[in-house]
Order: sequence, then C-alpha cells, then structure tokens
Amino acid sequence: HCAESVAYQSQIAGLGKVQALFTTWKPKEHCVCSALCNLVSLDKGNAVKNTASYTDSSDDETSPRDKQQKNSKGNGDFCIKNIKQADFGRREIEIAEQEMPALMALRKRAQGEKPLAGAKVVGCTHITAQTAVLMETLSALGAQCRWAACNIYSTQNEVAAALAEGGFSVFAWKGESEDDFWWCIDRCVNVEGWQPNMILDDGGDLTHWIYKKYPNMFKKIKGIVEESVTGVHRLYQLSKAGKLCVPAMNVNDSVTKQKFDNLYCCRESILDGLKRTTDVMFGGKQVVVCGYGEVGKGCCAALKAMGSIVYVTEIDPICALQACMDGFRLVKLNEVIRQVDIVITCTGNKNVVVREYLDRMKNGCIVCNMGHSNTEIDVASLRTPELTWERVRSQVDHVIWPDGKRVVLLAEGRLLNLSCSTVPTFVLSITATTQALALIELYNAPEGRYKQDVYLLPKKMDEYVASLHLPTFDAHLTELTDEQAKYLGLNKNGPFKPNYYR
Amino acid sequence: HCAESVAYQSQIAGLGKVQALFTTWKPKEHCVCSALCNLVSLDKGNAVKNTASYTDSSDDETSPRDKQQKNSKGNGDFCIKNIKQADFGRREIEIAEQEMPALMALRKRAQGEKPLAGAKVVGCTHITAQTAVLMETLSALGAQCRWAACNIYSTQNEVAAALAEGGFSVFAWKGESEDDFWWCIDRCVNVEGWQPNMILDDGGDLTHWIYKKYPNMFKKIKGIVEESVTGVHRLYQLSKAGKLCVPAMNVNDSVTKQKFDNLYCCRESILDGLKRTTDVMFGGKQVVVCGYGEVGKGCCAALKAMGSIVYVTEIDPICALQACMDGFRLVKLNEVIRQVDIVITCTGNKNVVVREYLDRMKNGCIVCNMGHSNTEIDVASLRTPELTWERVRSQVDHVIWPDGKRVVLLAEGRLLNLSCSTVPTFVLSITATTQALALIELYNAPEGRYKQDVYLLPKKMDEYVASLHLPTFDAHLTELTDEQAKYLGLNKNGPFKPNYYR
Amino acid sequence: HCAESVAYQSQIAGLGKVQALFTTWKPKEHCVCSALCNLVSLDKGNAVKNTASYTDSSDDETSPRDKQQKNSKGNGDFCIKNIKQADFGRREIEIAEQEMPALMALRKRAQGEKPLAGAKVVGCTHITAQTAVLMETLSALGAQCRWAACNIYSTQNEVAAALAEGGFSVFAWKGESEDDFWWCIDRCVNVEGWQPNMILDDGGDLTHWIYKKYPNMFKKIKGIVEESVTGVHRLYQLSKAGKLCVPAMNVNDSVTKQKFDNLYCCRESILDGLKRTTDVMFGGKQVVVCGYGEVGKGCCAALKAMGSIVYVTEIDPICALQACMDGFRLVKLNEVIRQVDIVITCTGNKNVVVREYLDRMKNGCIVCNMGHSNTEIDVASLRTPELTWERVRSQVDHVIWPDGKRVVLLAEGRLLNLSCSTVPTFVLSITATTQALALIELYNAPEGRYKQDVYLLPKKMDEYVASLHLPTFDAHLTELTDEQAKYLGLNKNGPFKPNYYR
Amino acid sequence: HCAESVAYQSQIAGLGKVQALFTTWKPKEHCVCSALCNLVSLDKGNAVKNTASYTDSSDDETSPRDKQQKNSKGNGDFCIKNIKQADFGRREIEIAEQEMPALMALRKRAQGEKPLAGAKVVGCTHITAQTAVLMETLSALGAQCRWAACNIYSTQNEVAAALAEGGFSVFAWKGESEDDFWWCIDRCVNVEGWQPNMILDDGGDLTHWIYKKYPNMFKKIKGIVEESVTGVHRLYQLSKAGKLCVPAMNVNDSVTKQKFDNLYCCRESILDGLKRTTDVMFGGKQVVVCGYGEVGKGCCAALKAMGSIVYVTEIDPICALQACMDGFRLVKLNEVIRQVDIVITCTGNKNVVVREYLDRMKNGCIVCNMGHSNTEIDVASLRTPELTWERVRSQVDHVIWPDGKRVVLLAEGRLLNLSCSTVPTFVLSITATTQALALIELYNAPEGRYKQDVYLLPKKMDEYVASLHLPTFDAHLTELTDEQAKYLGLNKNGPFKPNYYR
Repeated sequence: HCAESVAYQSQIAGLGKVQALFTTWKPKEHCVCSALCNLVSLDKGNAVKNTASYTDSSDDETSPRDKQQKNSKGNGDFCIKNIKQADFGRREIEIAEQEMPALMALRKRAQGEKPLAGAKVVGCTHITAQTAVLMETLSALGAQCRWAACNIYSTQNEVAAALAEGGFSVFAWKGESEDDFWWCIDRCVNVEGWQPNMILDDGGDLTHWIYKKYPNMFKKIKGIVEESVTGVHRLYQLSKAGKLCVPAMNVNDSVTKQKFDNLYCCRESILDGLKRTTDVMFGGKQVVVCGYGEVGKGCCAALKAMGSIVYVTEIDPICALQACMDGFRLVKLNEVIRQVDIVITCTGNKNVVVREYLDRMKNGCIVCNMGHSNTEIDVASLRTPELTWERVRSQVDHVIWPDGKRVVLLAEGRLLNLSCSTVPTFVLSITATTQALALIELYNAPEGRYKQDVYLLPKKMDEYVASLHLPTFDAHLTELTDEQAKYLGLNKNGPFKPNYYR
Repeated sequence: HCAESVAYQSQIAGLGKVQALFTTWKPKEHCVCSALCNLVSLDKGNAVKNTASYTDSSDDETSPRDKQQKNSKGNGDFCIKNIKQADFGRREIEIAEQEMPALMALRKRAQGEKPLAGAKVVGCTHITAQTAVLMETLSALGAQCRWAACNIYSTQNEVAAALAEGGFSVFAWKGESEDDFWWCIDRCVNVEGWQPNMILDDGGDLTHWIYKKYPNMFKKIKGIVEESVTGVHRLYQLSKAGKLCVPAMNVNDSVTKQKFDNLYCCRESILDGLKRTTDVMFGGKQVVVCGYGEVGKGCCAALKAMGSIVYVTEIDPICALQACMDGFRLVKLNEVIRQVDIVITCTGNKNVVVREYLDRMKNGCIVCNMGHSNTEIDVASLRTPELTWERVRSQVDHVIWPDGKRVVLLAEGRLLNLSCSTVPTFVLSITATTQALALIELYNAPEGRYKQDVYLLPKKMDEYVASLHLPTFDAHLTELTDEQAKYLGLNKNGPFKPNYYR
Repeated sequence: HCAESVAYQSQIAGLGKVQALFTTWKPKEHCVCSALCNLVSLDKGNAVKNTASYTDSSDDETSPRDKQQKNSKGNGDFCIKNIKQADFGRREIEIAEQEMPALMALRKRAQGEKPLAGAKVVGCTHITAQTAVLMETLSALGAQCRWAACNIYSTQNEVAAALAEGGFSVFAWKGESEDDFWWCIDRCVNVEGWQPNMILDDGGDLTHWIYKKYPNMFKKIKGIVEESVTGVHRLYQLSKAGKLCVPAMNVNDSVTKQKFDNLYCCRESILDGLKRTTDVMFGGKQVVVCGYGEVGKGCCAALKAMGSIVYVTEIDPICALQACMDGFRLVKLNEVIRQVDIVITCTGNKNVVVREYLDRMKNGCIVCNMGHSNTEIDVASLRTPELTWERVRSQVDHVIWPDGKRVVLLAEGRLLNLSCSTVPTFVLSITATTQALALIELYNAPEGRYKQDVYLLPKKMDEYVASLHLPTFDAHLTELTDEQAKYLGLNKNGPFKPNYYR
Repeated sequence: HCAESVAYQSQIAGLGKVQALFTTWKPKEHCVCSALCNLVSLDKGNAVKNTASYTDSSDDETSPRDKQQKNSKGNGDFCIKNIKQADFGRREIEIAEQEMPALMALRKRAQGEKPLAGAKVVGCTHITAQTAVLMETLSALGAQCRWAACNIYSTQNEVAAALAEGGFSVFAWKGESEDDFWWCIDRCVNVEGWQPNMILDDGGDLTHWIYKKYPNMFKKIKGIVEESVTGVHRLYQLSKAGKLCVPAMNVNDSVTKQKFDNLYCCRESILDGLKRTTDVMFGGKQVVVCGYGEVGKGCCAALKAMGSIVYVTEIDPICALQACMDGFRLVKLNEVIRQVDIVITCTGNKNVVVREYLDRMKNGCIVCNMGHSNTEIDVASLRTPELTWERVRSQVDHVIWPDGKRVVLLAEGRLLNLSCSTVPTFVLSITATTQALALIELYNAPEGRYKQDVYLLPKKMDEYVASLHLPTFDAHLTELTDEQAKYLGLNKNGPFKPNYYR
C-alpha cells in the first residue's frame, strides 16, 4: 500500500503485463512490500516482547496444525501458535487502541445501531495489534469474522492468541509454509454452516482462492474491500476481463490514504530510513530525488528542510514545473550523478538507476528506493564478479568497485521506508478506518448503487475518515451556516469537494 | 481567473443562484476580479509610460467612435483611442515578448504548419501587452482576429494602437461607456463578409452577445474558449439547460493554471499585498487564514516561512487534516479572533468574517480577502453610523470603533492579490499559452471528439503548456526509455497522468 | 544603522581610511543611508497626509529662519516650517505611540522616579513621529531636550510643529540648506543659560560641531549616545586618537538592534524591495547572494522559502560552512554569474560585482545591494558610452548592452532595503528604546563605571529592551526559581548571557 | 561536548558549586555524557563487527593487565585486550579516514614541516576509530603519543589493537575497573625516560592525575587541550584559584564546534532520537521546547519543518524575542503542558520539568532531554510507589499513573541525542581537527603569547578548521582582492571576524 499514485496509475495503464504473474502467484513472493511493512512494525512488537517474558515451554516447534487448542470458553475454531500468549497479545491490542481513536470512535457511535449486523466477513491481512483493533471494531459493529494472514511471516503470534481467546476464528502464525498459507485461507472460507458475505483482502490471495475453489460463494458476497496496489491491479484486471462478479472497493487510492501514506509519511520516513541505516548528516549534502510525485515531494521537502541541496529528475512536465516552483533544480540524472551524495528513487518506474549511473557515482554515495517495489534500481547489474559486496549492517551493503570506490546500497534496492523505518500507527489507523467504512458502505448500499466494478470510496466517506482523525490533533472544524451552504450549493455535512479533488 | 477551485466547485454545484445575475448582466460590474487584475498590471505599464513621453495633443477627449483613423497602410477597420501611440505600444509588446517564451516558442514551431489556418477568431479579453503577444501568436499560427475589450477600464490604449497599426481589427479603449462596450463587441462580430468560427472569451459577454443577437452564427462556430470563473459558470449553466450549441473549453480549471494562479502565485502575493499596503512586519505576528485550499495553502506556507504564527479554519475535514500535518493549529475563528494580528480569507464562501468577529478583533488587526470576489468579509456590516472610516492610503481603510479601536481593512474586502499586488507575467504567460492551445485543439479536433458540452483541456496539452515554460528555469526533463514506457504502459510523449491528477 | 555587522567590523579594522572623509564632512552626503531609511518611512506619512488636508496658505516659501512663530503658550524658542500643522503632527505621533509600546511602558514605569531628572539632552536625529515618541518619553523621564535634524530632507514638518507646540525646542524643517543645517545644530547648543549634559547623535554631526566650536562644553557632558555606523566610526576614531573626552555608547552594535535590523528585517525587506521594484516571481528563480553574514542569512532564508534556488559566495570559511549546512551551494561568483536571475550583495565590501560580471549576466538579470553603502556594485563601471541607461520606474534602471541585453539595476546600487522598501516601526521602536536606555545608563552611571571610551550597552539593558517588546507578541517569559538561579549562578533578573553572546 | 552554550556559560558563572564534585571524582560517573556519546558510535562499529567475524579464542576473560603481548615488531609498551584484533581495527580506522578529510589534509600539508616535532603528547580520550585517525595525524605531524581511555566502557578494543600494532603506547580496553582506569592513566605518564610536554584531555581526569601525583611534570608541559564541558569547568576553577600552572586551550567553546555540535547536529538528532525510540509521527504534533539557545533553535527548526506545532519557553528576553520572530509562540510551561504531545528540554538548567508538570501531561506524552546532563527533568520525582515504570524498549520507559495515564520517558532523562541517536563522524572530525590545531598552536606559540590561563582557540585557527571541511561540500571560497582586503582593513588570509563573532 505504499507505492505512489504515479506508479499506480501507470500500472493500471499497463495491466497487460501483470497477467502472467497472476497465474503463477506464490504467497511467499507476492507482497514483499506489505510484508516488510509489517515486519518492521513487528520489530516494535518484538522490542516490547523482549523485555516482557511470556514464552513458555509449550512455545515449541510443533506445527500449530498438529495442536489441539481451545480458548478459555472451550472454543477451538482457530489455529494459532499458542493460546497461552493471549494475555500478552491483549496488552498490545490495548496499547494500539490508544493510538487508533477513529476506530474506537466508530465503536462508540455504533453502539446503538449495528451497521454490520448480519455481515459475515472473511479477511486476509497482516495479523497485528492494529488489525486486531479493526477486527474487534467490525465485531462491535455487528459482523462475524474469520481471518487468515496475507503473509507467511507477518503474524504477531500473541495477537492471534488474544483474538482466538476473544472468540475470533483466526488461522495464522508466524512462519507458515506455503502449504500452511493456503490451508489457513481455506479454513476461513470452507466452513460448514457459515458462508461469508463480505471479503476484506490485502494482496488478493483470498479473493483469488475463492475464485478458484468456491466460485459459487460469490452469489452471496456483497462486495470486496481490497487495500494493496497488487490486489487492486488484480481486481481491475478481472473487471476488464468481465470476470468481476461483485462490486469491489479500491481502498488503496482514497485521497486520505494516498496523502498520508505518500506525502506526509514519506516526508518523515526518508529521514528516518537514511539515519537508521547510515547515520548520514543531511546538512550540506547534495541529493538527487528521481520523481516528483507525492513521494518525491515529501522526500524533497524533508531533505531541503534539513539543509540538503536537492536536485530533481522528472518525466512529467507538470510535476517538473512544480519542482521548479518549489525551489529544486530540475536536471537529468547524468548531469549530477558524479557530484551527489545521495540518490533516491521515487518514480514507480523501472531501471531508473542503472549500472552506468552507479559506475559514475562518487565514493560513499548512498543509493536507495522510496518508490515502488524493487525495480527502480537495477540491483541485478551490480551482481558481477568485479564488484565486491560487503554487508556492513542489516539492510546496508557496500558495493565496492575495483578501484576501492564504495557505493552504499540500502535494503538491496527494495523500499527504504518499509525496510528501514516504521509505519506510524496513525497511518495504519487511517487505513483501517477506511477499510471499516468501505465494508459498511458496500454492505449497506442499496441494490444498484454499486455494479460489478471497482470503486473508490465515496468522497463523503473519505471526509468522514478524515474527520474521525481530527480529534487526535485537537483540531476544531468549522461548520457551514445554512446561508453559506446554500450559497455554495453544498450539503452542510459534505461532501465538500468533487470526487476527483486531491 | 483567480478564485480558488474550492470556490469554483461550490459554485458549479450552486449554479442555480447565478441565473438571476445572468439576465441582468452589466459590463461595469461583471468582472471586477479580472478587471482589477489587469488594472494592476497596467500600473506597471503606467510606470513605464510615465517616464517615456508619448502623449500628444490629439490624445484629447473626443470619443474614439467619432474619430476617423487609419493605420500607416491605410486600413481603418478598428476603433481605438489614438493610432499615433502605436510605437509606444510596440515597445511594450516587445518587452512582454521577452517574458512569454512559451508563446514565442509556439510561433517558431508553427512556422512550418499553420494549425489555425482558416480560423476566424473573435476575442473579448483585457487588451494589454500580454494579450497582444497572444493575438500576434494566433495570427502567426494562421488565424484572423477581431477583438474587443472585456472591461471598460482595462485597455492599454497604446497597445491597442500598436495592434491596429499591425493590422488587427481592434475595438477598445480605456474608459468606454456601457454603450461603447457593447458597441465594440458588436463591431467585432457584425461584419460584412466575415464570420467568426472560434470564440475566445473572458467573462462570457461576447458569447452572451452572440447568443442574444446572432444565434445563427453558432452554426459556423467550432468552439468557445473561456477563461474566467464567471464565464465558465455561464457555460455550465447553458450546458445544463441544454442550450450550449457548440463545444466549449474551460481553460480556468486546467491544472497548470490552477496551481500557478493559486498556490504559487498567492504564496508570493499575500506577502506583497500586505507589505505594500501596511508595511507590517511578519515575524512573530499571529495570523488566521480561513480556508486551506490551494490559495490558503500558499498563504500559510509563505507566512509561516516569514516567522508568523498561523492558525487555519476549515470546513472540509480532508483539507483540515492537511493543515494539521502541515503544522497549523486548526481552530474555529472565534477561538482566535481576539488575539490575531491579521485575518485572511481564502474560502470562496460568503460572510466568513462577519461583524461579530470584526467587533472582537484587537486594535490594529488587519483584515483582507484572498479568496473570491468580495463576499468573504461582510464589509456592508461596517457601514454603520457608530463606526468611522478613514482612508489612510490607497486600498487601506481604518475602520474606527467608538472606543478608538482601529481595524485595518484592505481593498474594501475585494481581492488583495489583484488590488494590491501584481500578477507576474509568468502566470499570464501560462494562461495565454493555454488559451492558444485550447483554440488549436478545438479548431483541429476531428468531428465528434467534442460535443456540445464544456471540456477541460486534455491532460496532454496541459503537459505541453508546462513543458513550454520549463526553459525559463533552465529545467531539463527526463525522457522515458522505450523499455520504461512499455513497463508503465505510457506513450513516451505523454500524457503521463490521468486527467484527474492534480 | 542598517549595515551588517560584517561590514561594521571590517570598517573598525580599517578605520584609517575614513579619516579623510571626516575632515571634509558634508551634511548633504553623509548619511545617505539613514536619510533614505526615513525618507521611505516618510512616504508612509505622506500617504496619510495626502488624504488628510492640512496645508494652508501660510505653508509658503518663506524660510523658517525668517519667520516669527510662537506656540499657543507664547513660547517661540524653536524654528520650524509651520506651527499651524501641529494638530496633524499630533495625530501622527499618536498613531506611532500605538506601535511603540516599549517607550510607552518606559513612560509608565518612570512615573514614580524620574531617571533623567536634571538631564539636558541635545539631540540630532531624523525628526519623525517615531523620534517624537522618543523625545516625549525622555521628557516624561525628566529630561529637557533641544533637537535638530540629522538630515536636510528627512524632517516631517508637521511632527516638528507638534513638538514645538508641546514645548520642545526644535530646529528643523524639510529641505534645509547646508547652511541651515549647521545653523539649526548651533541653535540647539548655543543657548544662553542652558548647557547640555547629554548628547544623542545619529551620524556624528552634532558631536563634531561641539568638538569644533564648543569643546569646553564637554566638561559638563556625561556622555554621548550614537546610533549610526558612521557616527560610531568617528567615535572609535576619536577614541583611538585619544581625543574622546567623555564616555560614548555605541547603540548600533547592540545585539537586539543587530539581529532585528539585519537578520529579521532583511528577511522581509529583500522580498519587499524586489517585488515593489520588479514584480519578479521568486519561485524557480536562480539567485546568488554574496555574503552570508546576518543580512545574507536573512535574504537566503526568505528566498529559499519562496522557492528560489539560492547560491552563496563567502570569504569567511566559518560563514561558508554555515551556508553549506543551511543548504546553499557555496560558489565563486564567476561559476554562476551566467545562469542566475538575481544577484544580491550583502558583504559590506567594495567592488563585489564588477563590470566583468555585469558583462556576463544573462538578459533580464536583476542586480541589487543589501549590504553597505553603495560600494558593492561597481555602478561607475556601467557609465560608459556603449551602454544605454533607461529609467523604467523609480529606483529601477535598465542598463542595455549593444546586443540588446538588459541588466536591471535597482536603486543605482544603493541599499535596496532602504530605498525600495520600508523599515517597520517595530524595528524603529527597538532602536529608540535602546537609545533611551543608553541615555539613562550613561546619565546615572556611578563615577568611574565608564571612562573616555566607546561602550556597548550592558547585556542586562539589552535584555531589558527585548523584554519591553515581548508583550507585542503576547509572549510570556519564564522566571527562574531561586533554586535554578543558584544552580546556574545567575541573578534572577539577568543578565542571562555573557556580553559577547549573540 | 554536547551541552549548549547557555548551560556552559551559566556553569562557569556558578563554578563554586562543582568544587565538591571535583574532590570526589570517580571515573565511572564522571563523563556519562561523552561516554554515551561514543558508546552509541560504538554501536555502529559493533554493527560492522557483528557481521565480520574477528573473535578468536584468546579473546578470553583474562585481564589485559595480566597478559604479556607484543606487536609484530616486538614492541610491548602497551596494554590492550588483544593484539590479534589489529587487522579488524585497521579496517575501521581506514573507513573513518575517509570521513575525516580535514585530518588527512593536515597530514598531507605537514609532510614538509613537522609542527609537532619534539612534542610528547599524553592523551586521555575515548579510544575509537576517529581518535585513532587523530593520533596517527599527530604522529605524522611529528609528535610522540601515549594514550589512555577517558571512559571505562568506551574503548573499541580492535582499534586499540591496531594502534598498538602501529607502535602507539595505548593503555585501554573496554570494561576497565576503576582501579584499571587510573592504572592505565598512570602507565601513560609514569615512564622512565619519557616525560610529556603536552596534554590532550577529555574530562580532566588525566590533568587531575598529574596535578595530584606528578605536579613537577608541569614544569615541562607547554599546555593542556581540553574538550569537555566538565574538564573546562575544572580548568576555569583551577585558574580562578590561581592554581593553573600552564596555559590551557578550551576547545569546547570554539565557534565551529559549538555551531556544529549544537545547532546543526541537534537539528538532525532530535528527529532521529525521537523516531528511533518512539516511531512518533511529527506531523501535527504539538511540542514544547524549553530553552531557545542553539540546541533549542535546532530542535525547533527541525520539528517545525516536519509539521509539528512548536511552543517555546525561555528565561532570556533576547532569545525569547528571537523565538517570536522565528515564528514560535512563547509560553510558560504550565500554559501548554496539558495539551502537548512532546516535551523537550534544552536549557542547561535543572528541574525544568518537575513532577507537577508531569502530573498534568496528557496520556502518551513523550518527555526527553536534549540540554545538559540529566538534571533538566526531575526523574527522581517519578520514583514513587504510586507510579509504575514499564520498560518498553531500550531507552524507553512508560511511567504509568494510577488512572492509567502513561508518560513516555526517554533515556531516563539523560541526553537523548547521545543515548538514542548517533553523532555524525563529520562532527567528530571538526572536534578532532580543532584539537590537533590547538596542540600545534600551544606547542609552537612564542613565549608569552599564552599565560597560565584558559584560552579559546584564536579565530584564525577556527576559520582554518572550517576551511579544511569545505571540500566535503565541494564548496568554493571566494578570496579577497588586494584592494578589497585593504578597504576592509583585513589580512587576505583572515581572521575575517573578531573573536567574539558567533
């Protein structure tokens, strides 16, 4: 969910090329991006865990599939690592609750009505404390939930335990095999006497599985909510091919999410990622940022503020002109490659930094990717015999030329912000709230509002997500007077902007 | 052309209410906004004129309509103040040419082909040196032009003279009566043996006149290009009513124009306007900015950079959240009104600053409007007997309360940036280039591409406008490789973004 | 009072060279700098005056020296233009009072004690509304005052009238001859039965006159307070030569004054000066700033914030390193001179921009001086036959090369901030307050605290000046607890920093 | 070396109070500050070490004092952990060399002359790769060196090994006992046939030891160079008491060091420290920064740039006014304590954040210290039974109130920048270069230039340090012409500013 909209739009345009990938999909590979994302946030969890001792001898090597566990109420409809970790998981969920006020507000407002009463949600996401807050919110809103992990490594076992203890049918643990992965998904949907009517997916694997194994299930399904770039691609692909048989909500491209994930989040994570990996001093450094979309804008603003001298490359003249007006020299990469101290890619494109450029960088130049996937830097071109790789830290490699020149490559060209910094809970909160509202919208939409297509969240709900996060900042919204609303031709409660407003 | 998109969108939504206005339209009142805009840029011209002496005894009080003038080639198909001023006008046009490289580039590229060959353009805009550069560009592209002024005060007489001398049929002078105004427009369209096939309008008066007097003319007209907020409203209104009989291009809402007119231009003009009127020191001042659209964003960024403490009010939660993330306290106006030194409105709304707030401002508080029209500050509420008005400078009034408190009102609540600062030629260049491209697009579009509706300029042409302005900044655009274009599914020449990308 | 400290320090070092100047001093030339400063602020006054009509038929061409005027109490010990203008002057003084809260606070605090009781102050400064507030404050503190103008053009006649009406012996009018100038000064000091014991000088002319004509007067004089760079030089010169016979207070170099006049004031005035003269758009412009002292720092910060790309030149490695860390490319002028749009000098040096550089600038390049005097740009080198000068506006010349290239020279190379923008009253308030405190300090200092030397204001009084200006910003200072003061080894009331702290 | 100058000045003023400390000095406690500083930079080293395996079985638990080791040339005049680690240490020194170009330049320039020929330097500092580059530079300049560690934990064993292998007499290892500590120092100075004539100290322990044990040694000692705040205090104390018997150079307060350590370094480390410990998102957060000296200025600038809303508290009206002009609300702590998300102390004072304030903070408020030592936050007041402490990460404690409110305390109130972020090598390079130049200056100064007092480095040498670091930024200094130098009264090679210029 972290690629920039530029990239995203491009890829919609070029959907043809992902077709092949789709048919040979493998869970281990598929969502490097979001997996890393949460692995990092897991680090945070781990930090907590390391000090509090909750391990016990039963935390052994037995596969969860071979264990018989029951929660304290005697319920055994789940498959997790160790139910005894539930208390520790509960504490982490409670801490996360404090940082996700929007979902908590949603719970409170929904105490009277249950907008998800009757909803049977099957979910496949990272299973973390933040997800747990989402699941328990859905439950408070009236939904029944069954859940699997969208990544074989990203499950927080103690959170899964707390969920199972709380009565959720969770099938997930850290370190699943590929077979485990699909087995867990299957256990979520293939149940006697229970059939899902809503899908919440992150990456499209759950959707894929139902398409493949239980296509009839779609008859009862009211809609799909999908978060990831990849999953959204797959949905557009299905839609184009006329095979999408229920409405789907593209949560990835909602305004709020885009602005926060890209501009604001990257403004901070570029500094954080560079510091944690290299301890570089920003003041006075010459930096080239490739791409001036939202991610590039965030990176440039942050580095300029820290005293770096920033150059920008762009292909789009409009973004290029923005870079000029924002005070950045617009150059071609070859014009500055010899002089810069740091190269950052944010294009969503491939082969932006190729071997030719790497050859001309100066000693000590740092190269990293904030854009999309791992395509922007041609890392493969560095795997040649004359170059020596030296791993100097986690996520930091020195690539050494025969003359001794070192290029500092971060995260092997994968996304720096996901590999080497953390995603603030505040951003996860926006995403989770958007997911919850998308489920509510699809579930309650009158017949005919949504067809078998991919939709963006209605502007008004986007605005609602935003409004739920304003109290965090003690921010006070102004209300239109009747007279003003009439003058503007607006409803006092919004939407205040057209759908395309960014 | 200077209102913010928020305002604009709102007003499209509330189009019904402008209906009444439309039927009682009067040229003197209609485009206060754009009129002022150019009046200010005229000041610049005037500064030049004052030093160069070009007046002669024939610059008398006789109405141009009563004069018989011919240019040096014996052509008399124009009506202007004084053809003898042509040389002075020519010098001003030449200076403007230096600052409008995009139009000059267009001329050069069009030397081979004449994309407007056969076009008969009737125009109604401010007649200034910048417009002259546009008109001569259209001519170089193959068009024939007839032109009137869209405002009774804004014509630069010596520029009109230079155009007439150059063979353009111009009907305009500074200080027209209302009758003169419509007479000039009529002279442009009501010609023996010449019928326009393109309309370039600023405010909608020309379009209105043809609708009213020569509706049959639309049979030959290929399209309308309209620049102003007001004119665009009228077009949407016609379209809604099913009365728009040719395609129209809404130039006002093109991305490039919006970003430049609003964000970047206002970022500078808020400082300029406040300094020229009040000499206020920004450092340490407390300021509240009402509205965080593009205009508000520009104002806030500039004032923050100058050391002011800025508060923001908003009605839209998404913009509100952006304000928070950008480091501004989001408040209701009444929370800070007693403590702020400066109040700036940028909402596009009406009655944002009402008497109640004005009563509570502290002594010396400065109030001004950067948003839309003159509705945001309830100036009428200050015209009461107990308050004394004191004009302390041009555009600056002290409104004095019985207890001696003074509120400093700028431009009587009209747009500060248009009244008290100048519009950079660079911004006018973007607009003029966009107009030229819109004419080319409509004139050359294959049958059926545009219907009887209002259109935005295609993204690709927007990008082209931007690209023509990059050389000003010595900015070097990167080109996609074939491989990259394929990967992104893009044409190497753009468009690079979807139409809705901002 | 507006040169940067770099310049100032340098000139102290090079005092020898001003010796010649000193002996041939002429009032018309001497303080171009401060004269302009106040001439500009006069414009503001003029704006007010133009609307309010106070002229009467007696405002004729008769020299004030030939008139017999008395104020309403029958006192005639003054010489001004027209006593009837007193009411208008009073209103302007009242407006200024509102913006000089520190002096007003001083008046209030001094109601009980009169720290200047017995002081006989002779002053020679610009005579403006702000000076009037200072003079009336000195009077409220117990002093008797006699006053002349330090510049032949800068007197606000109606303010002088208000002062005369209020009982002050003022000898000044706008448009004095050189003879008038010295006559006025002489009338201030050469009085029967009254001998000054304090001098407040701006430029050193008054001090010079007493040295030359009435050296014995120094026996009773307790000290000199001098504000200008020039006057301070002359004092250091006297001191070096062993000829300074009373203590003198160098007000020009107090921290507060330096920071405000240079860093904060120039941060705003560079933008203001450029806009008012050229309407240039800052976004995307390439600018080179010569010198990174306080003035240069202010200019660079402002332009960077407005989206310009800024290069810096420096001779001092420490300031150079600061420029690097603040995000500016440190270059030699010849490396960027061909590409920049704006050149700004802030060095305090001479011949920084010489003909060779001017020859290589690109068409339309703007050149201006923010540094010191009129030496930084070698304007004389442009007065050659092959170059054409064209005055396009007040303070703006186009210098045109044979090939048509135009360089835009502002204020003929004199200080842009003084010629083309205004000095905020807030800055004048700081200066006036510092002067008042310096007088109090010198007048009340116990025997022996100050010798026949030039002193800076004690840190504690500098801090006091600052504290008097905090209420303007509704700023709340924290007080040390007894325990903290003890821990830090500080007095709870300051001084909080050593004298050399900047 | 990381306290702010405010603190420092205050403490000089209050020297009396450290007297007690001085007599009961203990190595374990004394330099928490600098120890941590380097411990952190050690982490970096450790990261490298962890991947490269250099441990061998001889890296056992035997005390180095009990081992007999010789380097490859048979020299055994050292005492370190394990000489076999020399190769690994050499590699780290080589990496450090790349980032310390100023010292390398010094080596090169000194190839001809040996300004330290005959110098016998005894040093007591952290023993890290950076120190090794300094020592080898001193050696290249002609000095003989003997070295001990100034902290019992901070020695990088493999670096010590490389130095010993290179022929340096090093006495230091990681994990010394207190007895070891003094034994090592004694081994440096108490040598047959070798007597130091220069001291390089960090913390004052070495100086203290010589005073106590070998006072006669001072007869041959030409001077002391001291880096730390603490050590400088001790020297001023000695000087005041008339007991300083050689000149001493206070390296801590040189301009370059102060600006880099405080303003520029803290601008980055506040963000880094907060992110690494809490992953907090800065955008929209309300922050109060206590103290607006250099450190406070750096923190405020960084947080404002990241979109935080920053309040400032100050005791000094001048700094307070600067805060206002820089755009920060100046408040008392109690005015905002309930609403802020983050509290940062930068005062150099004690008990700035006391229990009363901690009680009123909101849930989740983060509290940290960037100022001085560990006195600013009254951490002791939180050690009460009703509050629960929970260690959630290294350096991060949750202090939990009975009602569940959590305050997030970082580094237990010690310096955040030293505990939780790293010190860039660039900053260490400036310090080391300054130390080298101070040694050269003291060693070569003609008789009488320095008396038995504490001195700051002459401005010119400060400028030289800066100039040696400019190439890092590819920065090009401008040289004065002869004419300009004459005009300014300056030497073309500097110094360019008076000593007190900051």
